[in-house]
Amino acid sequence: MQARVIQVHPDDNVAVVVNPEGLAAGARPAEAPELLEAIPMGHKVALAPIATGEPVRRYGEVIGLATEEIPAGAWVREDRARMPEPPRLEDLPRATAVPPAPEPLEGVTFEGFLNPDGRVATRNLLGITTTVQCVAPTVEHAVERIRKELLPRFPNVDDAVAITHDYGCGVAIDAPGAAIPIRSIRELSRHPSLGGEPLAVSLGCEKMQPDRVFPEARLRNAAAELPVVVESSENYVLRLQDEHLRGFQDAVNAILAFAEKRLAELDRRRRTTRPASDLVVGLQCGGSDAFSGLTANPAVGRAADLLVRAGATVMFSEVTEVRDAVHLLTPRCATPEVADKLIDEMRWYDRYLASGEADRSANTSPGNKRGGLLNIVEKALGSVAKSGTTAIQAVASHGERVTAKGLVFAATPASDFVCGTQQLAAGMNMHVFTTGRGTPYGLAYVPVVKVATNTPLAERWPDLIDVDAGPVASGAQTLDQAGRALFEKILDAASGRYETWTDKWRLYNDLVPFNPGPVT
Amino acid sequence: MQARVIQVHPDDNVAVVVNPEGLAAGARPAEAPELLEAIPMGHKVALAPIATGEPVRRYGEVIGLATEEIPAGAWVREDRARMPEPPRLEDLPRATAVPPAPEPLEGVTFEGFLNPDGRVATRNLLGITTTVQCVAPTVEHAVERIRKELLPRFPNVDDAVAITHDYGCGVAIDAPGAAIPIRSIRELSRHPSLGGEPLAVSLGCEKMQPDRVFPEARLRNAAAELPVVVESSENYVLRLQDEHLRGFQDAVNAILAFAEKRLAELDRRRRTTRPASDLVVGLQCGGSDAFSGLTANPAVGRAADLLVRAGATVMFSEVTEVRDAVHLLTPRCATPEVADKLIDEMRWYDRYLASGEADRSANTSPGNKRGGLLNIVEKALGSVAKSGTTAIQAVASHGERVTAKGLVFAATPASDFVCGTQQLAAGMNMHVFTTGRGTPYGLAYVPVVKVATNTPLAERWPDLIDVDAGPVASGAQTLDQAGRALFEKILDAASGRYETWTDKWRLYNDLVPFNPGPVT
Repeated sequence: MQARVIQVHPDDNVAVVVNPEGLAAGARPAEAPELLEAIPMGHKVALAPIATGEPVRRYGEVIGLATEEIPAGAWVREDRARMPEPPRLEDLPRATAVPPAPEPLEGVTFEGFLNPDGRVATRNLLGITTTVQCVAPTVEHAVERIRKELLPRFPNVDDAVAITHDYGCGVAIDAPGAAIPIRSIRELSRHPSLGGEPLAVSLGCEKMQPDRVFPEARLRNAAAELPVVVESSENYVLRLQDEHLRGFQDAVNAILAFAEKRLAELDRRRRTTRPASDLVVGLQCGGSDAFSGLTANPAVGRAADLLVRAGATVMFSEVTEVRDAVHLLTPRCATPEVADKLIDEMRWYDRYLASGEADRSANTSPGNKRGGLLNIVEKALGSVAKSGTTAIQAVASHGERVTAKGLVFAATPASDFVCGTQQLAAGMNMHVFTTGRGTPYGLAYVPVVKVATNTPLAERWPDLIDVDAGPVASGAQTLDQAGRALFEKILDAASGRYETWTDKWRLYNDLVPFNPGPVT
Repeated sequence: MQARVIQVHPDDNVAVVVNPEGLAAGARPAEAPELLEAIPMGHKVALAPIATGEPVRRYGEVIGLATEEIPAGAWVREDRARMPEPPRLEDLPRATAVPPAPEPLEGVTFEGFLNPDGRVATRNLLGITTTVQCVAPTVEHAVERIRKELLPRFPNVDDAVAITHDYGCGVAIDAPGAAIPIRSIRELSRHPSLGGEPLAVSLGCEKMQPDRVFPEARLRNAAAELPVVVESSENYVLRLQDEHLRGFQDAVNAILAFAEKRLAELDRRRRTTRPASDLVVGLQCGGSDAFSGLTANPAVGRAADLLVRAGATVMFSEVTEVRDAVHLLTPRCATPEVADKLIDEMRWYDRYLASGEADRSANTSPGNKRGGLLNIVEKALGSVAKSGTTAIQAVASHGERVTAKGLVFAATPASDFVCGTQQLAAGMNMHVFTTGRGTPYGLAYVPVVKVATNTPLAERWPDLIDVDAGPVASGAQTLDQAGRALFEKILDAASGRYETWTDKWRLYNDLVPFNPGPVT
């Protein structure tokens, strides 16, 4: 491969090294000055001299301010530039450049499971959720037995899974922060993949009582002898401490009886042809590198545009990876009110981080930096490329169910496993995950299509990466081609025609609902 | 059973109803006035009239202030009393009533596994720890294979376990709060049950780089081409993103090869007779009720005194369940400096809760209240009964390894699964757990002896409760008898002579390291 660099925007004074082995001092790429020093793949070369204090520009935006004289051909790296201030939330343009509605893409369909509530699943799962971590091993024990003893009789059900988490007790349940994990677990419990209705195991004495999670459940008029009795629905929730359960084996048998009824219902479900508007595609990046914003993320953006044109809901997330690009997003919001909600989510997170004596610079991991990312500004500008070019139709707060069609911002932390959990809570039924460094992360609820930002990763991990966006960097594929191929892969995976690698290996990360409140 | 109530302290103006079915209006217990209304088991009857604003006393301490006139024989319940202020941290007596060293109990031993570092384990486990949640399903997949393919060849190893958690990335790793989960995971990785040395799987790009967790590991001079490369030990840590690993199957095979070497080492371990001074017993209560402070907790206190006399380390924990009883503990601290550390831990937690707009009243769960506990003050006074009567020799902060012998306060949250995790990090090799409401909680690392506070629970859950402390309430057993029996049970479980119920069912809760810092 010839020496190759990519300049993203005509105003940029840096370009990114493409060659997998990096470039040596003296290399002469066609689009850059002769290199003064060796630069690894994904890292940046100065296209022109940058004086101390002057901006480093990528994506046409300021990603850093030089802390020393950087000559043309030098490596623009972390120790030579400091991070600029984040965009001020007070002065942002709101809905000033709303993209027009794109041309509809008619007749796009996939094969999914229609639920009674009208939402559609990409899997048919028996999922037993939990109101508290205390009961997790009991539910896992029961699920093992369900898999062996019951599941073979219900061949249309894909799997039985224990939906466990770390929340539910030992927390300040009335603190403001508790609202987020409670509503998240509520939505996770009635996710389309589980049939849209909760089937939960509670301990009984936990802080997060079943009726906090399932207020809509039919109330049973429980014994009223105590003023603090909480009523609960027997339809949905099995409480291990209830009088009629006599210890562990009895509880497990009760869970099995409970599960058998639900399995009979789930077993009647069949995939049918559904319009693309029933898709809720969650986009995420993790283990990002400088290629993320060149290849995989913009290819995902092209696929996102196609999905939006086909009528689907597409959600992007990760507040700290949006914060430094928010000035590019508020103009794209469909209305000033949507822009205000987006700004509110940024402000909330700024304060949340400050309360822990941190700020958005706590994002960017050592791997991000090794992959060539200067700081969170460069990472964010690459991250939001996933959102494509259409108008932002709605903003959902952490754990809120998304109901709008089109492009939506669903607030989540950027932590991979927390983001995935929160996107599921928001109603995601299909997941696309881009990665430059590589991760075996996966989810039991929905297929995860994993996109490599660079070919060396795709080649090194052939049994984990579903799509290689690397050819975009070498010029072998256009972004439009890559986006179209990914769009097709998403439809195939959602329909069960393509089995993702994480599904093949059953690599399912535990859910981690976002809990900004204190532990007691 | 005759109508029976228990008055804990001669100054008390309430007593606790003992009868499992509660007492009806008109009941006449020997030690209390005629009941004016029905009172459930575990709840309190007024022994004398309590005027509005006057104190409700139990354990000789003020547990509430009456918010209405409470006549003698009435039910003293949550809506009739408000919580008093917590003890002021500024005015506490420090080491003013240090109990004398108790008479030594000579010759007490158990059978344990001695590690090279001198610490002793109660189990012989292959534990593969993780630096980040992203790799958890990969490690779980590998551990399943290890159990099937390798473990049968190493009969002296009890089990192979994946030590997974929710920490490691998507967190503000440089924020002050991050120190706690990092040191906790370090200690969990070199726990005596795992042989005292870490064996860990890392992704590579995560925030919590291996060398943050294992700074003592032998450093390998890794490729120096990037300024931000973090060096790591190949002895201990396998990084999935390292160049030589080619995807998922290759990574799993590498973990198996890694595990096989460690299994060969672990398989040479044998139990030998060890002095009781090698025991580190962690005490916890969860799903407490008003009997906790009458039966199980004081029985544990008697056992704790015997263990201290035998030379063992005994740790009690749960900051929010100590906070309101701290004025009873600071006089017992061995030195003013120990008392200061105890006060510092209370102050730190007060601030932590305030930062999330909560306070210690966030403790007490609905189950606690149904069990008769008025508030956190009554719960705390019952909780600290576990600490027995000896001097507090040392105070460890969250996740710090305990090295002192005798009674130690190891700071942890009160959340059952977080407390258990943090006590393991502090070096616990044996766990005692009291419960009034019942919980199937267990730990893979060490035996958990579960003590019921009341006989109805012990009878209802015969396959989960190891010890019934209920006979103390009926008068069929003295606290000394119950404490002595528990002491023997602890030695039997630690030695592998008694299999606890959670071990029988393999009910092992995931570890939840305490993370007071923000998620990014």
